[in-house]
Amino acid sequence: MNILIVHAHPEPQSFTNALKNTAIEELKKLGHQVEVSDLYAMNFNPVACAADFTERGNPDYLNYALEQRHASKQHALADDIQAEVEKVQKADLLILNFPMYWMSIPAILKGWIDRVFVSGIFYGGKRFYNHGGMSGKKAMLSFTLGGRDHMFGDGAIHGSLENILIPIQRGTLAYVGYEVLTPFIAYHVPYISHEAREQMLIDYRQHLQNIENLPSIAFPTLEQFDDKLYPLNQN
Amino acid sequence: MNILIVHAHPEPQSFTNALKNTAIEELKKLGHQVEVSDLYAMNFNPVACAADFTERGNPDYLNYALEQRHASKQHALADDIQAEVEKVQKADLLILNFPMYWMSIPAILKGWIDRVFVSGIFYGGKRFYNHGGMSGKKAMLSFTLGGRDHMFGDGAIHGSLENILIPIQRGTLAYVGYEVLTPFIAYHVPYISHEAREQMLIDYRQHLQNIENLPSIAFPTLEQFDDKLYPLNQN
Repeated sequence: MNILIVHAHPEPQSFTNALKNTAIEELKKLGHQVEVSDLYAMNFNPVACAADFTERGNPDYLNYALEQRHASKQHALADDIQAEVEKVQKADLLILNFPMYWMSIPAILKGWIDRVFVSGIFYGGKRFYNHGGMSGKKAMLSFTLGGRDHMFGDGAIHGSLENILIPIQRGTLAYVGYEVLTPFIAYHVPYISHEAREQMLIDYRQHLQNIENLPSIAFPTLEQFDDKLYPLNQN
Repeated sequence: MNILIVHAHPEPQSFTNALKNTAIEELKKLGHQVEVSDLYAMNFNPVACAADFTERGNPDYLNYALEQRHASKQHALADDIQAEVEKVQKADLLILNFPMYWMSIPAILKGWIDRVFVSGIFYGGKRFYNHGGMSGKKAMLSFTLGGRDHMFGDGAIHGSLENILIPIQRGTLAYVGYEVLTPFIAYHVPYISHEAREQMLIDYRQHLQNIENLPSIAFPTLEQFDDKLYPLNQN
């Protein structure tokens, strides 16, 4: 497989960075091609704005998604966006590798999505969810967080992690067509021993060795809804 | 009340901007003090990084939350962060006003949270949820989106909006202590008539006129959990 790892951590010595390096090493050992977008190292600009388009459909009013659609047809995306789009298009598997900030992805990674998941290429019209532009490809999260395992789940203090991940796993990755694989989650990272972290890297290698057989998360398909996206079966 | 509106839209002629202007006008008319952080106009930097601290607890390894804690004690936060922290501290009500991007907030607003919701001031140790640093204050979302009302809810194509908003309403605003008020949601904005949009602004005025009586969203309290954050009553 061609694999793209998008990595977002400000500290090169971080455990999140070690996860990224472990993935590069292990995936290459397994015979895959691996490319990396290290967003902090690239000084990636995460702010969606008018300068993202070298030519505008409507120069007087910025509707970002409409301009994405226009620019994707006219080859008028800014160079940094175009380069990332091509990396994503080439990849059979996309891995987002990040520390969880505020039950979500860091801003630099959020902005990578805002700017790179271009309307007209990733989605548009009825091309979303299982008909999204990236259908046939896989995506997976690998992330670190401060909380412990028991703080997540139904009835737990933060609620279920599955729910917390809805915007990124369902609303973003599944929305553009990806089959979303079971994430790799490293809990309580800042507070555990060096040995426990080393074990996590071993666990991550095993997770990656199993990548072709990892279960994917079930999401609705367009076939369950009518033309106006009302559910076909309300029972 | 002192009210802070944090606004994040790249187009000054946008309907999201009209919501912000409507809120300023209506809230002032109701006798409140209103301050605005217009993130695009401020060219706000959303990327959490080492330069956010003028002095470091550990100059050799960046643990962002630990450095926030250190810097908040040593008055060593970067000026742009310090200015925003002071605006938030002064405000009895915080309104986040934005277009929904990828079932979430735009990166520039995500980065405002990543950088401004400083550990040691907003939360830390056992100061979170109903004991968070902003407890006693209120927060509210006002946002625009492309989807229609019927596309959200249990069994709907995108699932429930309440779930989609968990990272921001529960994992962020409630986490730091805010009482989270019922959001104002403008559906299907790019596709509706000018008249329908005008009606939405009227609806928003009414929402704001009722701000002191708006229901707030129920979240768990620390008193429902033990010292290690296991639920006290598992039934």
